[in-house]
Amino acid sequence: MSSLEICFSPDLIHLHDLRGKIVVVVDIFRATSTMVTALANGVTSIKPVEDLETCRSLADEGYIVSGERNGQKAEGFELGNSPLSYLGGTFEGKRIAMTTTNGTVAIERSKSGADEIILGAFLNLQATATYLLQKNKSVLIFCAGWKGKFNLEDSLYAGALASLLQFPQDCDGTLAMETLYDAVNKDLVGFLKKASHAKRLQNYNIEEDIDFCLTHNKYDLIAILAGDEIIGKKKPHQNQIW
Amino acid sequence: MSSLEICFSPDLIHLHDLRGKIVVVVDIFRATSTMVTALANGVTSIKPVEDLETCRSLADEGYIVSGERNGQKAEGFELGNSPLSYLGGTFEGKRIAMTTTNGTVAIERSKSGADEIILGAFLNLQATATYLLQKNKSVLIFCAGWKGKFNLEDSLYAGALASLLQFPQDCDGTLAMETLYDAVNKDLVGFLKKASHAKRLQNYNIEEDIDFCLTHNKYDLIAILAGDEIIGKKKPHQNQIW
Repeated sequence: MSSLEICFSPDLIHLHDLRGKIVVVVDIFRATSTMVTALANGVTSIKPVEDLETCRSLADEGYIVSGERNGQKAEGFELGNSPLSYLGGTFEGKRIAMTTTNGTVAIERSKSGADEIILGAFLNLQATATYLLQKNKSVLIFCAGWKGKFNLEDSLYAGALASLLQFPQDCDGTLAMETLYDAVNKDLVGFLKKASHAKRLQNYNIEEDIDFCLTHNKYDLIAILAGDEIIGKKKPHQNQIW
Repeated sequence: MSSLEICFSPDLIHLHDLRGKIVVVVDIFRATSTMVTALANGVTSIKPVEDLETCRSLADEGYIVSGERNGQKAEGFELGNSPLSYLGGTFEGKRIAMTTTNGTVAIERSKSGADEIILGAFLNLQATATYLLQKNKSVLIFCAGWKGKFNLEDSLYAGALASLLQFPQDCDGTLAMETLYDAVNKDLVGFLKKASHAKRLQNYNIEEDIDFCLTHNKYDLIAILAGDEIIGKKKPHQNQIW
């Protein structure tokens, strides 16, 4: 039977058994929101990379390199971590190599044993839920957090997804976040703007990014790790399975 | 200026700087609830011990030894971890050595640099809040969790204490738990009975312990680590500082 659990931080992932599960990695501000946006706007694939140097070196192999540390574009990189950069098909048909402060770390740590790794964002919340309901496997929602700490936007996404799935759970994190999501979802954007990382991003004048990342269900595709690159899969036509 | 932060697990405490802070360790089911109850019922002091063997050996030094693992009394120990054992002054004037699955681990990990370590429970919530408001130092609420994972009862206690203190914070955990506490506090006991550890304890037929541990403000003393033993401090008379 499918079940649901939430891990709040890469520093807690060792407590979870990933085998046989679908892991949903989430880093709302902004890695996974950006990945979903890039794929929805025609990018061919995204290679998540843990360190800046490896990422930079991939330019020679034809990748567009995108690097962010502490919320800001890393020095010498063409792209930072703004989802807005991908709108309008600017990078259509390109392959991206991407390294971020938290999100790419979480993807790397998901690789030990998970059946599938998908990337979640509010931007494709319903599509991801529909996919998981069709698969009907046990799910672990893995919040990238902020440098190991719990963060609000990833955890509330987990609550939102849990609320849509209604899988059986014996996980206090799921109970807490589903209840918190129900309590604040009437003004989710207002509440999430109080989050520490949103406040951090506001200092960099990228409020537009925040609003964009909190948009619900703009895209109707899932983002899934295939080999070592992330690709998009569009929802099939009605009555077909994914 | 005083500030407030929450750590959800002993596995995340390395992310926090304890220096200059008062650490409030909380393990509602049941270590810190039991400690507060024992001290309120005349126990002289409690020595927290990480492992069963050390704890057992303290019997030779005149300690009453109390040991629990996975919610049950450890083999060969006189006492388990039920607060009810201490009611009625059965152990008045005695020194207790206590080892538990989660709580004593959290106390041990708090020792690196904290200004003071106190033990929190719903049983003395208001007394602890009053003490912290008088001290006006930065506070870290350290949830013992369950074997490294987030748990609901400790985290909601943190939310309840945060709600009473209203210290400035830049901590997503605090914002999440204060908001969740406000959302569920009308039926806190009903909500907390859904927590995974409460369900685990119910399997051992110790529902009475759960109800007792969720009682608010039964005792008017704080529990504080002095040297390597925990003692109780009664609230002084009005207009006196603690």
